[in-house]
Amino acid sequence: MLNIRRLSANAEGFREELDRLLAWETVSNDSVNDIVKEVVNNVRQNGDAALLEYTERFDRLKLNTGSELEIPNARLHEALEIIPADQRTALELSAKRVRDYHERQVQNSWTYEEADGTMLGQQVTPLDSVGLYVPGGKAAYPSSVIMNAIPAKVAGVEKLIMVVPTPDGEVNNMVLAAAAICEVDAVYTLGGAQAVAALAYGTETVPAVDKIVGPGNIFVATAKRMVFGTVGIDMIAGPSEILVYCDGKTDPDWIAVDLFSQAEHDEDAQSILVTQDAQFADKVHQSMTKLIESMPRKPIIETALKDRGAIIVVDNEDQAIEMINIIAPEHLELSVDDPKALLPKIRHAGAIFMGRFTAEALGDYCAGPNHVLPTSRTARFSSPLGVYDFQKRSSLIMCSAEGANELGKVAGVLADGEGLQAHAASARYRVKD
Amino acid sequence: MLNIRRLSANAEGFREELDRLLAWETVSNDSVNDIVKEVVNNVRQNGDAALLEYTERFDRLKLNTGSELEIPNARLHEALEIIPADQRTALELSAKRVRDYHERQVQNSWTYEEADGTMLGQQVTPLDSVGLYVPGGKAAYPSSVIMNAIPAKVAGVEKLIMVVPTPDGEVNNMVLAAAAICEVDAVYTLGGAQAVAALAYGTETVPAVDKIVGPGNIFVATAKRMVFGTVGIDMIAGPSEILVYCDGKTDPDWIAVDLFSQAEHDEDAQSILVTQDAQFADKVHQSMTKLIESMPRKPIIETALKDRGAIIVVDNEDQAIEMINIIAPEHLELSVDDPKALLPKIRHAGAIFMGRFTAEALGDYCAGPNHVLPTSRTARFSSPLGVYDFQKRSSLIMCSAEGANELGKVAGVLADGEGLQAHAASARYRVKD
Repeated sequence: MLNIRRLSANAEGFREELDRLLAWETVSNDSVNDIVKEVVNNVRQNGDAALLEYTERFDRLKLNTGSELEIPNARLHEALEIIPADQRTALELSAKRVRDYHERQVQNSWTYEEADGTMLGQQVTPLDSVGLYVPGGKAAYPSSVIMNAIPAKVAGVEKLIMVVPTPDGEVNNMVLAAAAICEVDAVYTLGGAQAVAALAYGTETVPAVDKIVGPGNIFVATAKRMVFGTVGIDMIAGPSEILVYCDGKTDPDWIAVDLFSQAEHDEDAQSILVTQDAQFADKVHQSMTKLIESMPRKPIIETALKDRGAIIVVDNEDQAIEMINIIAPEHLELSVDDPKALLPKIRHAGAIFMGRFTAEALGDYCAGPNHVLPTSRTARFSSPLGVYDFQKRSSLIMCSAEGANELGKVAGVLADGEGLQAHAASARYRVKD
Repeated sequence: MLNIRRLSANAEGFREELDRLLAWETVSNDSVNDIVKEVVNNVRQNGDAALLEYTERFDRLKLNTGSELEIPNARLHEALEIIPADQRTALELSAKRVRDYHERQVQNSWTYEEADGTMLGQQVTPLDSVGLYVPGGKAAYPSSVIMNAIPAKVAGVEKLIMVVPTPDGEVNNMVLAAAAICEVDAVYTLGGAQAVAALAYGTETVPAVDKIVGPGNIFVATAKRMVFGTVGIDMIAGPSEILVYCDGKTDPDWIAVDLFSQAEHDEDAQSILVTQDAQFADKVHQSMTKLIESMPRKPIIETALKDRGAIIVVDNEDQAIEMINIIAPEHLELSVDDPKALLPKIRHAGAIFMGRFTAEALGDYCAGPNHVLPTSRTARFSSPLGVYDFQKRSSLIMCSAEGANELGKVAGVLADGEGLQAHAASARYRVKD
């Protein structure tokens, strides 16, 4: 049988075992920090020259001038022509569905007026410019371009700058085609901490942006943390996770492969099945044992399931819900008859895949919602990437003379109470009676 | 004349001087980091015992058991009775206005159905629990309780836990009264990195929360950074700032004191006047010189204005707007005839105070919008604290059989293109034709 831990929610020591299983902390490594600090400072001080130096060293790509870092727009459109027709159609459909969904997230400005003529409100504006990091090499995912670029464009970001390394000159045409479809404004062949530094501080060639998003390796993540404050960043993602809750009535083969689909991401990924049906748990385990043989990424899946996977048998639906809310999974599949009935009880999950037909993989590519989701229990306090991450708000306050008269008195009392007398004076200058 | 730099936007080297003036980076100090790391680990491992030890050492308050850390609810209501009537009325009015404004920020869940019966949407839920840090001693601000607690309560947070140190046993009744008004669920007499660690990891007495908000000194800020990921945190604020843009037609005394009201916060605070009227610039400078003498916090104001303040003369309104968008101020006063006409051109500001009557101080206390705002040019990519910081979203996807059939094909093509075959298999199990 395939090696995966089998747990019962009522066994002694279960909660401690679950906590150990869920524990994940990104270890900040001093040597990585030191390397990244040097790279960031070098790019900040020396601009293009530093970028050319690192691109030659790390990507084995020798360029002579900064301008050669740019991948021209015509090359993106060429990629769109080169890729197979079914891939192009799939990318275009994905982009369309993601756009349709995200358009519903757009927030608008609002104001209201009080009886004395005082106006209050909130002005919503897009970010001016955003940098999108796209990994090169084996983890070059066109879906990642779509999921990061489209919310930014829907928000109204005018300058969307993409960086993608091309190690040894290897270009991923699907990635460039996705950039063309998403109308990315400029693409540079850059990767690693140097790409993040270029986007944060700008160089002669690469414009500085206001926020940097997109996945990356430990060097990229460390660089993002380092430039945070100078620019905004998205969340630093942990390993991918899925929790499938099944009542025992879905084809066990389907569930087995759903669990594989997260496990194949990398060895740290986490796949958990929760069910009240102990016999179904056995069936899924058997399906996994059978189907693992046909999986091209078998070694990764096996390691992930052995190290971080689990099949958990619970007493009933209520205990399953309790488990879901403790785990706060990135991806939650509710493979049950009436998933809508469960929604009000589910407090924490990045994305919820409802019903037996909704494979998590559909959400990764083309259902419409974003695939950038909170991991490692952070769904307790954070949300999927969305249009709201590319919009910002400014409060609006416009007092009438009468409003300032009334509010000035109140502010004066409170400012005096806090010992801030200039605040009090400033408020009271507008008080007339 | 009061010492403040006078700049002309057209002078040679102006932009470099402005950049130097705006530059602010929180220096991460190794010794602070080391102390905080030890405190956080000690609290994480030893719980209440560590809290009692640090509270005795840092706040000179000797308690015997963890339960003594709690300030009982009755004590909060006692504070509400003790404080002067005008303070109570002012706090209650402030809380009401802040609640009214923030209720307009509440986001609701939504779903939509496609032609084939597939349902997509977004479920919005409040955070379960939030910790609110309130500084003790000289910077104990009741307005800070109101501005942090009310958006959380409006969002629907059920467990709002406040921590406030009481150094040498000194209790601020206005702060406790504000907690009573805001219906904070529990208050502990705790401060510093130990308070942050207790909220992040929980102890026998203090419950672990999902997010920590509120201002604090460098130890608190460092601890928040350290526990980020385990819990959510709000932004780490830099020094307070104001940019007043005036067309020259407001009473220069008003403008002078508005500039003082930020400068009095601390020596690093930044007050900038931008005007196209050079004579008005002189008048405000004269007003400042005259009025500084009556300011109880004169030494702080003088230092802040000398080190980080500026009066900038521009050619015209367009250049003033350009200046505003470069500076991206936390607080922006538009002291002009028609501030509404300027709004569409203002791309970055935390809060915009419109018209001659709207002193920034009104927004600090009682206008309604939040006073926790992005500083140090981060208004380019971030927003005031709001209800949205205490809500989170889960994506919803529920495919019909037909929807899964169509989307499964698309996902299969893209997953194959990315080399993720288990994803492709999982999607294709639901494809029937």
